Amino acid sequence: MISIAMLGYGVVGSGVAELINTNRGIFKNSMDQELSISSILVRNLEKYKDNKNNRLITNDIEDIFKNKVDIVVEAMGGLDPSYEYVKRSLKNKKHVVTANKDLIAEHGNELLSIARENGVKLYFEAAVGGGIPILKPLAECLLGNKIENIKAVLNGTTNFILSKIEKENMSYNEALKLAQDYGYAEANPESDVMGYDSARKLAILSSIAFNKKVHWKDMFIEGITDIDYKDFLVAKDKGYTIKLLCMSNKVNDDMYGSVRPVMVKKNSTLGIIENENNAILVKGNAVGEVSFCGKGAGMLPTASSVFADIVDVVTNKSSLFMNIADDEIKVDTLIEEEKEWLIRIKTDKRIDVMNKISDKFSNTYVYSNNFVNDESELMAIVKGKEKNINEILNEIVKKEEADSYRKILIMGEV
Amino acid sequence: MISIAMLGYGVVGSGVAELINTNRGIFKNSMDQELSISSILVRNLEKYKDNKNNRLITNDIEDIFKNKVDIVVEAMGGLDPSYEYVKRSLKNKKHVVTANKDLIAEHGNELLSIARENGVKLYFEAAVGGGIPILKPLAECLLGNKIENIKAVLNGTTNFILSKIEKENMSYNEALKLAQDYGYAEANPESDVMGYDSARKLAILSSIAFNKKVHWKDMFIEGITDIDYKDFLVAKDKGYTIKLLCMSNKVNDDMYGSVRPVMVKKNSTLGIIENENNAILVKGNAVGEVSFCGKGAGMLPTASSVFADIVDVVTNKSSLFMNIADDEIKVDTLIEEEKEWLIRIKTDKRIDVMNKISDKFSNTYVYSNNFVNDESELMAIVKGKEKNINEILNEIVKKEEADSYRKILIMGEV
Repeated sequence: MISIAMLGYGVVGSGVAELINTNRGIFKNSMDQELSISSILVRNLEKYKDNKNNRLITNDIEDIFKNKVDIVVEAMGGLDPSYEYVKRSLKNKKHVVTANKDLIAEHGNELLSIARENGVKLYFEAAVGGGIPILKPLAECLLGNKIENIKAVLNGTTNFILSKIEKENMSYNEALKLAQDYGYAEANPESDVMGYDSARKLAILSSIAFNKKVHWKDMFIEGITDIDYKDFLVAKDKGYTIKLLCMSNKVNDDMYGSVRPVMVKKNSTLGIIENENNAILVKGNAVGEVSFCGKGAGMLPTASSVFADIVDVVTNKSSLFMNIADDEIKVDTLIEEEKEWLIRIKTDKRIDVMNKISDKFSNTYVYSNNFVNDESELMAIVKGKEKNINEILNEIVKKEEADSYRKILIMGEV
Repeated sequence: MISIAMLGYGVVGSGVAELINTNRGIFKNSMDQELSISSILVRNLEKYKDNKNNRLITNDIEDIFKNKVDIVVEAMGGLDPSYEYVKRSLKNKKHVVTANKDLIAEHGNELLSIARENGVKLYFEAAVGGGIPILKPLAECLLGNKIENIKAVLNGTTNFILSKIEKENMSYNEALKLAQDYGYAEANPESDVMGYDSARKLAILSSIAFNKKVHWKDMFIEGITDIDYKDFLVAKDKGYTIKLLCMSNKVNDDMYGSVRPVMVKKNSTLGIIENENNAILVKGNAVGEVSFCGKGAGMLPTASSVFADIVDVVTNKSSLFMNIADDEIKVDTLIEEEKEWLIRIKTDKRIDVMNKISDKFSNTYVYSNNFVNDESELMAIVKGKEKNINEILNEIVKKEEADSYRKILIMGEV
């Protein structure tokens, strides 16, 4: 009998309980083992007084460790108190399975060390890409490869909002409100729309891919709050759409890492990803580009990954390559290659700025006043290195010829 | 020191040797093990007399077993003599890693049994989807799911040919010749263009997904040899393209399985797959639809999967769920649901046949003579159950109102 303690019994926790229940047969038949939930930690006892698992429910963490526990499933999310509870579980020599991206992005390296020291496992397949098998394939199936780069769409809320701006001409705020009404975005949507959620997931992926410790905050992170229908007009015109794209690639011993809105070809692997779907493209030096797509969130998709981790613990799979190394990697935040960018400049001196831009970049496409339809804005497509573009535009702002600017990478095929 | 014997040293074999060489570090650092190729079996010694591994090369299978061998990598392909050699290796208690889809589709069940009896492993990730991690994710990451269906594009040669017919208005024969000139198709292309290669891969996938033994020949198999530009005209008109699609799904205790040309939405996961790329969509009851895409063939992509299998052997991963069960599954070959089909009927009695068709099906779209541009052909789109459509069309042929017919499933989104 294998005893599982559940920390948290929300969407993910109840999904995991459901899969444990429906898959009893697998364990009985294949492993001659029985899985059983020994206790469930919740914040609010009252909420669960009519739950069928009522007798297992407690709001006292001490109760969790009083019972025999083999595996702790952490499904609370956030850092406090998850971090302490997971650390304590590992130190008590309990295996831990978690879906908590915040926890792994912040403390994965330390927690994996503690797990190793205590001879137990820490698995977290569901922390990136929800139900999509990605961490195990990356760490185990592609381990003959040097991973060159990762491109991914890892956040469903921003997919939804961007799609509403694109297809229904909504403003960002209207689309956000709709996402909140539907329950796709939280009351405080910061983590999703500012790109932090994506950045945490990309940091976990990159840590495993590049075998270094990647701090998510070291990456360039730009959310989708400034995106409007005009960005999509430009995109559409070129057969592109806009996604909040996670990108990382190895640059000698360092890496480049960013989360930002990017124009990608509409009919590409990443361009067709919508709503709760995620996609992860991994390029290895031997295998070429491999992609993994599916539901990045939701009760049963997430539980599907947690359940697979539980089985790996039970069957005592070694996790030699599912690791986050101790040495930290330097993260570059500027794109080195010459690329096309859409630039949008807030200025009352359009003619002056336009002349300056045309002067500085050899190939500049400036959008007509008619298209822009805003006398205080200049829109253009320029090609160059990000560093140079930033310098030129910062200079213009500094000389008070413009109030501000923003830019969107035009990536094309992905 | 872990000794590897290679059976075969063609494209796959030399790719594996290259990855073993470039990844020595992984083994040294992570596992304190050294991998070494102890011997290589080839057919023609002469061909390798200047090869840098010349001293390891033999054409005598007895030499292979004289040396210390831990893992046999079978990279010869085909059944004869692979089947005997793999069986002998397993019985000699050597682990076997193979990329051989023919072997696994024909004898996987028996060979896995022999491996179990002898306490060794048989891995074959590269047999399906080349470099794409699919068998391990399917067997291990999705094992909390009941797999409902699989849809896949698993053959690069037919992707290439279909794409040439579509984009350059070539005939099938012209496109085949081009594929042969480029080395994408073999001199005898039967296995690819008739769908047998795809069917073998689908049988392996379905065996693991449904936990039953699936005979590839039990499935409905139709190749691409009849496809012409007019099929693509119809497809294009509806935003579709045509792929040689592998489909299987669970129907109570039985399954449906087929390989056939199908119209799929052009901007869908399967519709955008081109050339050597493969895509596999797996639908699980918990996770929903997950897709895996990448290079389905080629030296290093295939070697990438073989290498991962070698590491799994070395790290002694249990393969509890990577199995092909003993009990055989009944395979249905007719699509039960009402679907739209393009039907193309060779007939000198177009008016008669058209009237009959319109009479039998409630919603029939008949293409104009102008579109069809062939007085002896009738093209129409009908909706119905495959069984009924076949009966009606067979009846027409039997009454000598038509010479022959063929039909293409219109699937839409996948």
